[in-house]
Amino acid sequence: MASISTLFTKTPNPSPSLCLPRTPKSHFTPAFRLPIPLHSKTRTHQKLRVSSALIEPDGGKLVELFVEESLRDVKKREALRMPRIKLSRIDLEWVHVLSEGWASPLRGFMRESEFLQTLHFNSLRLDDGSFVNMSVPIVLAIDDAEKHQIGDSTKVALVDSKDNTIAILSSIEIYKHHKEERIARTWGTTAPGLPYVDQAITNSGNWLIGGDLEVVEPVKYNDGLDRFRLSPAELREEFTKRNADAVFAFQLRNPVHNGHALLMTDTRRRLLEMGYKNPVLLLHPLGGYTKADDVPLGWRMKQHEKVLEDGVLDPETTVVSIFPSPMHYAGPTEVQWHAKARINAGANFYIVGRDPAGMGHPVEKRDLYDADHGKKVLSMAPGLERLNILPFKVAAYDKTQNKMAFFDPSRAQDFLFISGTKVYFLHRKKMQTSFFISYLMIIPKWLKIIQTGHAFFSTWKYLMDDVSEQGRYILQMRTLAKNKENPPDGFMCPGGWEVLVEYYDSLVPSNNGKVPETVPA
Amino acid sequence: MASISTLFTKTPNPSPSLCLPRTPKSHFTPAFRLPIPLHSKTRTHQKLRVSSALIEPDGGKLVELFVEESLRDVKKREALRMPRIKLSRIDLEWVHVLSEGWASPLRGFMRESEFLQTLHFNSLRLDDGSFVNMSVPIVLAIDDAEKHQIGDSTKVALVDSKDNTIAILSSIEIYKHHKEERIARTWGTTAPGLPYVDQAITNSGNWLIGGDLEVVEPVKYNDGLDRFRLSPAELREEFTKRNADAVFAFQLRNPVHNGHALLMTDTRRRLLEMGYKNPVLLLHPLGGYTKADDVPLGWRMKQHEKVLEDGVLDPETTVVSIFPSPMHYAGPTEVQWHAKARINAGANFYIVGRDPAGMGHPVEKRDLYDADHGKKVLSMAPGLERLNILPFKVAAYDKTQNKMAFFDPSRAQDFLFISGTKVYFLHRKKMQTSFFISYLMIIPKWLKIIQTGHAFFSTWKYLMDDVSEQGRYILQMRTLAKNKENPPDGFMCPGGWEVLVEYYDSLVPSNNGKVPETVPA
Repeated sequence: MASISTLFTKTPNPSPSLCLPRTPKSHFTPAFRLPIPLHSKTRTHQKLRVSSALIEPDGGKLVELFVEESLRDVKKREALRMPRIKLSRIDLEWVHVLSEGWASPLRGFMRESEFLQTLHFNSLRLDDGSFVNMSVPIVLAIDDAEKHQIGDSTKVALVDSKDNTIAILSSIEIYKHHKEERIARTWGTTAPGLPYVDQAITNSGNWLIGGDLEVVEPVKYNDGLDRFRLSPAELREEFTKRNADAVFAFQLRNPVHNGHALLMTDTRRRLLEMGYKNPVLLLHPLGGYTKADDVPLGWRMKQHEKVLEDGVLDPETTVVSIFPSPMHYAGPTEVQWHAKARINAGANFYIVGRDPAGMGHPVEKRDLYDADHGKKVLSMAPGLERLNILPFKVAAYDKTQNKMAFFDPSRAQDFLFISGTKVYFLHRKKMQTSFFISYLMIIPKWLKIIQTGHAFFSTWKYLMDDVSEQGRYILQMRTLAKNKENPPDGFMCPGGWEVLVEYYDSLVPSNNGKVPETVPA
Repeated sequence: MASISTLFTKTPNPSPSLCLPRTPKSHFTPAFRLPIPLHSKTRTHQKLRVSSALIEPDGGKLVELFVEESLRDVKKREALRMPRIKLSRIDLEWVHVLSEGWASPLRGFMRESEFLQTLHFNSLRLDDGSFVNMSVPIVLAIDDAEKHQIGDSTKVALVDSKDNTIAILSSIEIYKHHKEERIARTWGTTAPGLPYVDQAITNSGNWLIGGDLEVVEPVKYNDGLDRFRLSPAELREEFTKRNADAVFAFQLRNPVHNGHALLMTDTRRRLLEMGYKNPVLLLHPLGGYTKADDVPLGWRMKQHEKVLEDGVLDPETTVVSIFPSPMHYAGPTEVQWHAKARINAGANFYIVGRDPAGMGHPVEKRDLYDADHGKKVLSMAPGLERLNILPFKVAAYDKTQNKMAFFDPSRAQDFLFISGTKVYFLHRKKMQTSFFISYLMIIPKWLKIIQTGHAFFSTWKYLMDDVSEQGRYILQMRTLAKNKENPPDGFMCPGGWEVLVEYYDSLVPSNNGKVPETVPA
């Protein structure tokens, strides 16, 4: 378990000179534009609740769990007399998430009743009988020795790897960590190889400890990106400042391409047509734990910067910030969490794409989730009734215009299907035995791939494996970037693409030819 | 897939002379007491809604899906021109369940939106925004050939193994049967060996077909027990006739012992104390698919008869009927279904015990579910707010009185813990190395078990395996009955016990010494 200060040191980060711009014209909202110190967040929020017309947080009130700054030293001294529980990197990310109220009205790590409601109902019932959505367990595992050490204590101190007190958990409840059941009900599979499970569950303790959280040391990562980690209260403040009458959130954990930009621009246009005067985009990359082969946060932020420098998105109506949650890759279950957390940050519109929070099945050769389930589940989820779900309009590469455009099924042959991680080529409705030959003939630009024997065979194998029943041929964008191939013109701005190529270039292959893990364990 | 008429032929049934009594004094409610013919159920219910003060069915209206008798022949002729889908035994049981409105307001096999809501939320959202509980998928699987055969048809005929038309499914929707995900989210495990999964999912088709159900041939089993299969409308009629102002349901799939009887009698007493004038008990054994080593329905009904002949329960305030659902053994998920279905039958109180609908883990040596989760999940489940959950008071065998009594923790040493399938001996709080020796010394009555070498070792092994952290020693009642041992005096009436011994006696061991499967595949 890495300490806070070492969290990102193994990741090939962009150099400081490549950090995000601080100009007022940036699409980003760096910290210096926010005069409110962190410890005054609750007051900030209370101000907001009076002046803002933003969507109400879940439970009616944004829950922030920071101890007043004047009391922190006293609390830290108290904490020294309590049993001490060491937090992993992911535990710390959850402390961060809880402390800022992303999971409002949750007031700490889940007790058993919250855990069970999350697993079975993806929602929590409040005292007034209403439901808020809560689809992903936010729990803290402890082992037998820690449980024994806690004994009859009703409070514990939560500490980082250097034994610094981060928080106090009080009125604790310890209950069994039924790992298999947790995994099955959260992911819909128990297949080995689920990244979050391998990282945070399999080897974790056999007990879960819930209770009320009080944070005495706000979580910082010291990776040059903390200023982009705006809390829900800070985001609400920002939206209010900008007089937003609608906020539409776009969750992402991949490089931004021009299809995304088209979608976001078009969404604002649609919201204006609906009568909103000033819809603001929350472009909200996920910043917590991601699997080893995802592009690390630092590189993604750098890529976003390059993409946004082009001015495709209007800086006046765009807020870029980092969502601190770790990633579960739990598809339809997790997309609810992604949406719910954004309500708490003030978003009342949520853009959802194909297979949100999905991944390949860890064992079988197929996607883990049905690509349409995320969108469907989100639209039906208890507690998300107030949120407007905006299904992703399909953006594709129009070969006749050499740019990204919304897909027109009447001239399907003109389009290449492209997403952040994959390039789809919609060739014909039914798989044909000659598909590989025609693929090679139709896309001469990509023939260079074949010059590399390894890339050729892996691409070929991937194509063979992934021909779905619609006859889509799938090619990972990663392969292009790794091989320094260019994507079709107009797919992504050259600066953004260069960042990706640079990132893959920075990975030193290990002995077996595989790229090393880019995220520390 | 067995036809209706052969469904139970492999089961060692009681002889006709042992059938349930038809005297008016019976605790059962045989069909001749119900003058309403089956085809007039809807009208019956509409009458009830005016005259009865019973709890409203889910969705406000009991949904019955029978075609008017006068139209059945026409519908059957129409059905001959439709694609035909063959129903398995379990499919037929679900047609039965749906047709009588146990799953109200569901109007047929689930379409995808209902399936997804069931898997993720254990509940369905109605048009008015309210929720009804629905925790178990009620779905119909078809294979590729059937899907191909259906083609563009919007209706299909559902037929039994003899090709008789049972029902029509219209406005159909065909969607993928994501088996792994269905299993994981329903059972909280994907371990091999789950009975319902082996029986009804693993080898079923890769597609699910949902739609509106119209039943042209009400499901009958011709096993001598059909008269005890009262529909929700018939039960409501019966409760109304008896002027019930509270109905408390007791789901069971095991033999009834005196602890159950004590609990049921005591529940009525408590309800009277609460001010109800005439609480009626619905004693409601599950009648659909059960796993091979459960006591078959026919024997259970015979056992219930013997137990009830003793007059332990008041026939005036008890209705015994069969619940037609198949059994999932899905613990906290399934208990919600068991409770919800009883709301539709008019019950507003539901008794829930330890580990409801649970079983041993199919692979690991532990219970599949936390014994307390069923009760907890039930008390929090969306859509069950109107139902009063009555947690099982712990009945145990009081050695000082030689009868079943409510457990008194202040003199724990006086009690043997006994349930329908297991005998628990609460000996001391912590496991001690000498537990087996003391177990033998303290319970000399059971020493006879040791005389049979096989029983000795299997019992010993079972004890070794199942000593939980509370130090409970568990012995399967089945072992006693198989070995013709008597349980402690006062545990079960001798007549009821004899039925169990007779049942196990009827099982002819196969070559490998194991008892044969008692439920046909």
